[in-house]
Amino acid sequence: MSDESQELGITESKSHKPGEWYAEVVQKAGLADYAPMGGFIVTRPRGYALWERIQETLDGWFKDSGVDNVYFPMFIPESFLEREKDIVEGFDPEVAWVTQGGHDELEERLAVRPTSESIIAPFMADWTRSHRDLPLRLNQWCSVVRWEATETKPFFRTKEFLWQEGHTAHATDESAWEEVWTRLSQYERVFEELLAVPVMRGKKPEHDKFPGAKTTTTVEALMPDGKSVQSATSHHLGRSFAEAFDITYADEDEAEQTAYTTSWGLSWRALGALIMTHSDDQGLVLPPTIAPTQVVVVPIWQEDTKADVLEYAEALTADLEEAGFRVELDDRDERNPGFKFNEHELNGVPLRLEIGPNEVEDGEATFVHRPDNEKVVEDRDGLVDAVDDHLETIFEKLYDAAAENLEENVREAHSPEEILGTIGKHGGYVKTPWCGDEACEEAIKEKIAAEIVMQPLEDQGGTTAGDVVEPDRDECGVCGDPADEVAYFAKSY
Amino acid sequence: MSDESQELGITESKSHKPGEWYAEVVQKAGLADYAPMGGFIVTRPRGYALWERIQETLDGWFKDSGVDNVYFPMFIPESFLEREKDIVEGFDPEVAWVTQGGHDELEERLAVRPTSESIIAPFMADWTRSHRDLPLRLNQWCSVVRWEATETKPFFRTKEFLWQEGHTAHATDESAWEEVWTRLSQYERVFEELLAVPVMRGKKPEHDKFPGAKTTTTVEALMPDGKSVQSATSHHLGRSFAEAFDITYADEDEAEQTAYTTSWGLSWRALGALIMTHSDDQGLVLPPTIAPTQVVVVPIWQEDTKADVLEYAEALTADLEEAGFRVELDDRDERNPGFKFNEHELNGVPLRLEIGPNEVEDGEATFVHRPDNEKVVEDRDGLVDAVDDHLETIFEKLYDAAAENLEENVREAHSPEEILGTIGKHGGYVKTPWCGDEACEEAIKEKIAAEIVMQPLEDQGGTTAGDVVEPDRDECGVCGDPADEVAYFAKSY
Repeated sequence: MSDESQELGITESKSHKPGEWYAEVVQKAGLADYAPMGGFIVTRPRGYALWERIQETLDGWFKDSGVDNVYFPMFIPESFLEREKDIVEGFDPEVAWVTQGGHDELEERLAVRPTSESIIAPFMADWTRSHRDLPLRLNQWCSVVRWEATETKPFFRTKEFLWQEGHTAHATDESAWEEVWTRLSQYERVFEELLAVPVMRGKKPEHDKFPGAKTTTTVEALMPDGKSVQSATSHHLGRSFAEAFDITYADEDEAEQTAYTTSWGLSWRALGALIMTHSDDQGLVLPPTIAPTQVVVVPIWQEDTKADVLEYAEALTADLEEAGFRVELDDRDERNPGFKFNEHELNGVPLRLEIGPNEVEDGEATFVHRPDNEKVVEDRDGLVDAVDDHLETIFEKLYDAAAENLEENVREAHSPEEILGTIGKHGGYVKTPWCGDEACEEAIKEKIAAEIVMQPLEDQGGTTAGDVVEPDRDECGVCGDPADEVAYFAKSY
Repeated sequence: MSDESQELGITESKSHKPGEWYAEVVQKAGLADYAPMGGFIVTRPRGYALWERIQETLDGWFKDSGVDNVYFPMFIPESFLEREKDIVEGFDPEVAWVTQGGHDELEERLAVRPTSESIIAPFMADWTRSHRDLPLRLNQWCSVVRWEATETKPFFRTKEFLWQEGHTAHATDESAWEEVWTRLSQYERVFEELLAVPVMRGKKPEHDKFPGAKTTTTVEALMPDGKSVQSATSHHLGRSFAEAFDITYADEDEAEQTAYTTSWGLSWRALGALIMTHSDDQGLVLPPTIAPTQVVVVPIWQEDTKADVLEYAEALTADLEEAGFRVELDDRDERNPGFKFNEHELNGVPLRLEIGPNEVEDGEATFVHRPDNEKVVEDRDGLVDAVDDHLETIFEKLYDAAAENLEENVREAHSPEEILGTIGKHGGYVKTPWCGDEACEEAIKEKIAAEIVMQPLEDQGGTTAGDVVEPDRDECGVCGDPADEVAYFAKSY
């Protein structure tokens, strides 16, 4: 048992060694393991359950807003990928290539899909004949592979990752913009309402758009270590893909028109952001909205009180179950309460109910919050309401802490020295007027691993691109040239 | 519009050209298209919705019976696959090989998973330490690739296919058997209760087991063209995988023991069996249990009755929606009722409600069943109950027809000539005493493309392998040697 106790605890510190700490939380809380091949992970039951909840939530919203799920082949012939060269100069995808099938060399290499525009677009062209077929909204939940040689970081950086990719076609530019903002809003909601992670919405700078896109919009979350996570993106593809793949339709006058397309995706990076944002040196911390187990009931007994305590704990667990909470009674004989407390803390159970002989006698239950260990004694009567309230409070604590971190870490700067100094000292976002020239980003990037992660927008959510927020001053924070945009610099994952 | 009408109808006949007919139904009902690479298909919204309903149903049952979902990498290093050679002599998987990542040759080839035993087993070994960790029940929903050079048949024969694969470890042989039968029963229920396809349960002959398995159990469905479909399998793997991959645990006395493992899978062949079983020359037929749209309401109006008819149809649709039916009101202006009838027949909507001025005046609705066009007029009062009853009746019609087909097509035979003659003339299953020698299967297979698809079992569902049903006569139907088993010969998909 001493071995297991040692194994159980997190040994690294979030503030001192965030990378090592993160890897330890992921593994010890049973979320994922490293696969034998570098760049790949094995997603364990507790990790996959989190992904399933994101899927379920987002998929419901997608379906309610007119999206149909489909499944396209995981392989894309090289010649199909090549067609993207018409759209994107210097397109050179880093992908895994299948070159042999059985014992034979393939005549044409097949790419394991890095994203599916090039295989989906030709079918969208087939299925889009009349204006009545539009908008066409398709989505698939699948895994994709990008052969990038970076250090593996579960959920953040893996060669294979799980995601959803949406692909839509529209008759008008306005309809496409509406789509882009609808999906971005749904992503924002997933982060804010399900993961308790506040995000900022904006667009990527022109030079950092998705290849072939007219505009890439993004939601960005700030991690406690001061780095930004690009959490999900929604692209307006203009007519470039439609032109390259002949996505046309007959309008009401039977005239042929070219469609507008969009694509949008959220990957399991969302899990990375979730874990990194809330967890601590005791292990995983989860908001009750996504926690597979929301409440754990831990009975504390001596031999002579065991029967009474267990009976009380069982009845109370049954009540909570019936009320619809995801609750677990930990009545294992072979573990003592201390061990159980640690284990459930490690695994990120938001609310613990301790039940000892005193609680039984007084008709009460002791509530303990994760992560701050706040202890409150509540009456057995009205327990269901009390649990509801406490779970809400725990969600708010987590959300508020993350929102405070975000709020405190957006700083203004108006010279290269100030930008570098601020990021170097505090991390977080540095907001500055920008002339729009990529060279200014390069100038910062050369000195410190930070880039323009986002440009905030006015009037998001309509049927247009919206305007980039105008700066308070009109000189670029890097080069001093005239500037009419605002840029957010940050280090990022 | 004349073009579209022509495109809409099924031109091939199920009884005369079942292969061409099947391909046409799949494409014209919008279930799937052929991908540009041979062996691959694109699963369209209406096809994927069927798969989602199977997933949802089965996944719920899995979770209720202790299974956790996981996700393992889609690639398996060649050396891992090779370890299966310890278990299976002559193991030579026909797989797709990834040999290049980005611009580099890989040091070790990666197989795109054909099934995941060899990558999951080592992790099961890691996670199984104490008897308290058992049973360990993992499942994943994913796609797999098998590089077999056969003609593409959507859902039946494709190089990539969607499935779920379950992998479990147990302390005892009994517990493993229980698992095998639990999953086989769940598969049987999916076919019988969700797809309205009756199946037979049994085991595969020894020479046709899953490589490395102790026993392969199967559910088999009989298609209208007389061929059997292996619809799902559940394998008792004995200790062979556990020995090869060191899946051991400490028992209650701290002694090391080797576990027993099982694996079980159901693929989108289930969709193939569903489509093939019920559909007809008018197109797709679906039982209401799985149909994405269970009821379509078609208003029939002239200019002067339009307002009244539409109002009535809308109110009635709203009632059905509220009662929880998957209902659609087809109020398209640009299509006439006849076109709509054909389209919904093609797409397999089980129940059509026709609403014209007469129905409005008399407070009624005309119900039309798919596939037999039975027409019944029902009162507007009590409509919800009536729809419920009719959907149940439609399900029963489909199930009963398939059950009758199965019942009529199990025939006995007691000589090679009789076996060959019966399969040649009727298709279906031929039941015969069998000595257990593979050579007897070969003797039949040489003459006609039929093999032993199943051996029925006594006492299925317990904690043992169960006994193979004993034959009425004790001479092998092929060679005449002593026989104590029964075998079912059939052609198969």
